[in-house]
Amino acid sequence: MSDNLQIFSEFLGTAILVLLGDGVVAGVNLKKSKAEGAGWIAITVGWGMGLAMAVYIAGFMGPAHINPAVTLAFAAMGDFSVGLVVPFIIAQILGGIVGATIVWLAYMPLWSETDDADGILASFATAPAVRHFTANMVTEIIGTFVLVLGLLSLGENDLSDGFNPLLIGILVLSIGLSLGGPTGYAINPARDLGPRIAHQILPIANKGSSDWGYSWVPIVGPIIGGLLAAGLFTIIPF
Amino acid sequence: MSDNLQIFSEFLGTAILVLLGDGVVAGVNLKKSKAEGAGWIAITVGWGMGLAMAVYIAGFMGPAHINPAVTLAFAAMGDFSVGLVVPFIIAQILGGIVGATIVWLAYMPLWSETDDADGILASFATAPAVRHFTANMVTEIIGTFVLVLGLLSLGENDLSDGFNPLLIGILVLSIGLSLGGPTGYAINPARDLGPRIAHQILPIANKGSSDWGYSWVPIVGPIIGGLLAAGLFTIIPF
Amino acid sequence: MSDNLQIFSEFLGTAILVLLGDGVVAGVNLKKSKAEGAGWIAITVGWGMGLAMAVYIAGFMGPAHINPAVTLAFAAMGDFSVGLVVPFIIAQILGGIVGATIVWLAYMPLWSETDDADGILASFATAPAVRHFTANMVTEIIGTFVLVLGLLSLGENDLSDGFNPLLIGILVLSIGLSLGGPTGYAINPARDLGPRIAHQILPIANKGSSDWGYSWVPIVGPIIGGLLAAGLFTIIPF
Amino acid sequence: MSDNLQIFSEFLGTAILVLLGDGVVAGVNLKKSKAEGAGWIAITVGWGMGLAMAVYIAGFMGPAHINPAVTLAFAAMGDFSVGLVVPFIIAQILGGIVGATIVWLAYMPLWSETDDADGILASFATAPAVRHFTANMVTEIIGTFVLVLGLLSLGENDLSDGFNPLLIGILVLSIGLSLGGPTGYAINPARDLGPRIAHQILPIANKGSSDWGYSWVPIVGPIIGGLLAAGLFTIIPF
Repeated sequence: MSDNLQIFSEFLGTAILVLLGDGVVAGVNLKKSKAEGAGWIAITVGWGMGLAMAVYIAGFMGPAHINPAVTLAFAAMGDFSVGLVVPFIIAQILGGIVGATIVWLAYMPLWSETDDADGILASFATAPAVRHFTANMVTEIIGTFVLVLGLLSLGENDLSDGFNPLLIGILVLSIGLSLGGPTGYAINPARDLGPRIAHQILPIANKGSSDWGYSWVPIVGPIIGGLLAAGLFTIIPF
Repeated sequence: MSDNLQIFSEFLGTAILVLLGDGVVAGVNLKKSKAEGAGWIAITVGWGMGLAMAVYIAGFMGPAHINPAVTLAFAAMGDFSVGLVVPFIIAQILGGIVGATIVWLAYMPLWSETDDADGILASFATAPAVRHFTANMVTEIIGTFVLVLGLLSLGENDLSDGFNPLLIGILVLSIGLSLGGPTGYAINPARDLGPRIAHQILPIANKGSSDWGYSWVPIVGPIIGGLLAAGLFTIIPF
Repeated sequence: MSDNLQIFSEFLGTAILVLLGDGVVAGVNLKKSKAEGAGWIAITVGWGMGLAMAVYIAGFMGPAHINPAVTLAFAAMGDFSVGLVVPFIIAQILGGIVGATIVWLAYMPLWSETDDADGILASFATAPAVRHFTANMVTEIIGTFVLVLGLLSLGENDLSDGFNPLLIGILVLSIGLSLGGPTGYAINPARDLGPRIAHQILPIANKGSSDWGYSWVPIVGPIIGGLLAAGLFTIIPF
Repeated sequence: MSDNLQIFSEFLGTAILVLLGDGVVAGVNLKKSKAEGAGWIAITVGWGMGLAMAVYIAGFMGPAHINPAVTLAFAAMGDFSVGLVVPFIIAQILGGIVGATIVWLAYMPLWSETDDADGILASFATAPAVRHFTANMVTEIIGTFVLVLGLLSLGENDLSDGFNPLLIGILVLSIGLSLGGPTGYAINPARDLGPRIAHQILPIANKGSSDWGYSWVPIVGPIIGGLLAAGLFTIIPF
């Protein structure tokens, strides 16, 4: 596959991921939504299966990282061309902005029904349950460590290609349920930064601050966590 | 497979889809039902897995579109015989009417226990959370765009035929969770029009208006969304 | 596989089905249980995945019907030896009695915490949401029709043997969510009669009537529904 | 694979299992957590899919027992080297301690928000709904019997290796939903003892007693249940 097609697939896949992922948060958080109050199981299944679908959609055109932490981890292991790292990450962030913008369009009549600015921001970017930068970053490191270790382990199993994206979605469902409580599990810098930019730019009814003070945690934490998992995987003598 | 068998399979598949899909809404909405109040996760899993089962049932006799938006998108791409489009759509709408009628029979003793006419209508056809024809149509366009893009992408993956219907069900689960909040995700004209006709005709206890004023949105929106996805897929140079 | 092994597999499989199926109802209904109030989604996932596991366990020793309605439908189609019908059904009912007895043992300290006799009976046998023998039987007919039509359709798809039991479990999850509201979806005479006998016999704390007046509905309805599906499947000219 | 790699895989797999399993309990139990109050379905899906992911991660390096009851059952059947039993069990318990410690780190800012010592202990080790050592042990025996019987039966089906860990996760989801109500389903001595040791040692805010009086039940019960299943499986003449 050509480089341009692969870069486009990162853009499209991340847009679909954020559309389906942020979409379920909007559905649960916004007043009058039919999904209002559907809770954490709906959010985690929505993100997990949304990722699975994004990987199916991106996956016939490219490697479907749709996550800068994954791209960097694979590049550090020598499994991915270094020259594509920057174009991939740009495409992922742009995909995140576009996906979040489509969420805004899809839920258009509901933003003005909600006066909870935190719930609106949560439909775009993550925020910690209790704000503590070090602790929050540790949580993101742990979550992304499990994500990348899981991705690498799934790759070692005897799986048909077509089955893998579903398992990756279940992996993210599992991380969301089990490690998402403290920070809302960004575990993906593009998933957080792209929608935060969209939140800043778009004229969303009733929106508040885009909380840029926290924005570096879901960038730095996932990158560290992904690199740690790549390092562990590299030294296992299997 | 003969044309007649394929047309019958569209009828049967759409009937099963609507039976299982509208069935779960009736189960959650109707008073005294054992599923009463089971919430949005039950509704979205019920629709998603109901679709998967409908595709397994229709799928050994035909292509199992069971959705006019899918039939039109595939025909526009040249992947489906134009001569079968009208018979397929008629069979799908008739299947929707019959499926909804069986829901009425299955839940027979419970309609009279419920005095919520909106909840009864929701057990047949969709209604928007906030009524705004343009915005509601945009939501249906986005949802069906993801549906058809997902169907086409799944077809490009290396999947056994037997695994695909389950993934299509998970795709619809994902769309329901993530994009269903504003309009109840018709994303299928036959799924909405067929049951709305049944709601109009059948002597359902405590029923109210069939809301024909809204009925064109879940027809036009899904058709546009499906065609847009087919167009995007066609221009990707993979 | 020998006839005796197949008969044993029906006994063991139905015992596991009822243990896991009635177990989740006890878990949700009984006071102080950690699953108390987990709701309809827990019950339907528990029954669905419990069936999948029962079919995996029974399935390496026999055909894993674990349901008299399935055995009768397959025999009527000529796909199953008539001479094994009676031994299979007896084994299934005995399995239901034993499975329900093990539920009683597993939840032993919790029965005396609950004074809701209906909730206790529901942990063994089904009861209708609104009692109306004709309507309740129609619901059971429709549910079992979908079950047997689904089983037969899954058999026509290109599936590895190892994947099929999971799909059958998802089929039962779907039926439970979508058609379980009015009667609690017995859709299996042995699943209802066996545990009802156990409820009658065992010295369960705080138990009430075993409701034998209703007991014929979840026997006759599923048998009719299964035979109707077998008949439809037989006349489809595919 | 070398013995040392297999032993390491038991350590890593059990650590991931406990991280994801105890993690979801912490997420649901701790105040201010985004998963707070997500309920039993979240807990059982979290444990089940967490196990599936742990088996994928451990499984490319070893047999992925990650449970002393499984190791002992397989050894009793002659399917596993007796010389590796003790190293495996030690690795599993150490993995449990480390996994629980990482849960403590991941949820660090939330422990001090919660003054429910029982909820904190439940984020590490199991406790019975109603304390009765004999009955609690019977429940753990039954649950682990189903676990090991299910594992052995899945091994007899025609499954690709890559699909099996997901089914094992669904098996544990099923056991949790259906048999977890009375004791919280340890069904794994290392999953309970390791985190209980961590709970004892770590300076967790607001923690109470580690409840060592109960600690032998989730060790002895699972071992008996696993051996009983191995015995039954051995005498079936298939």
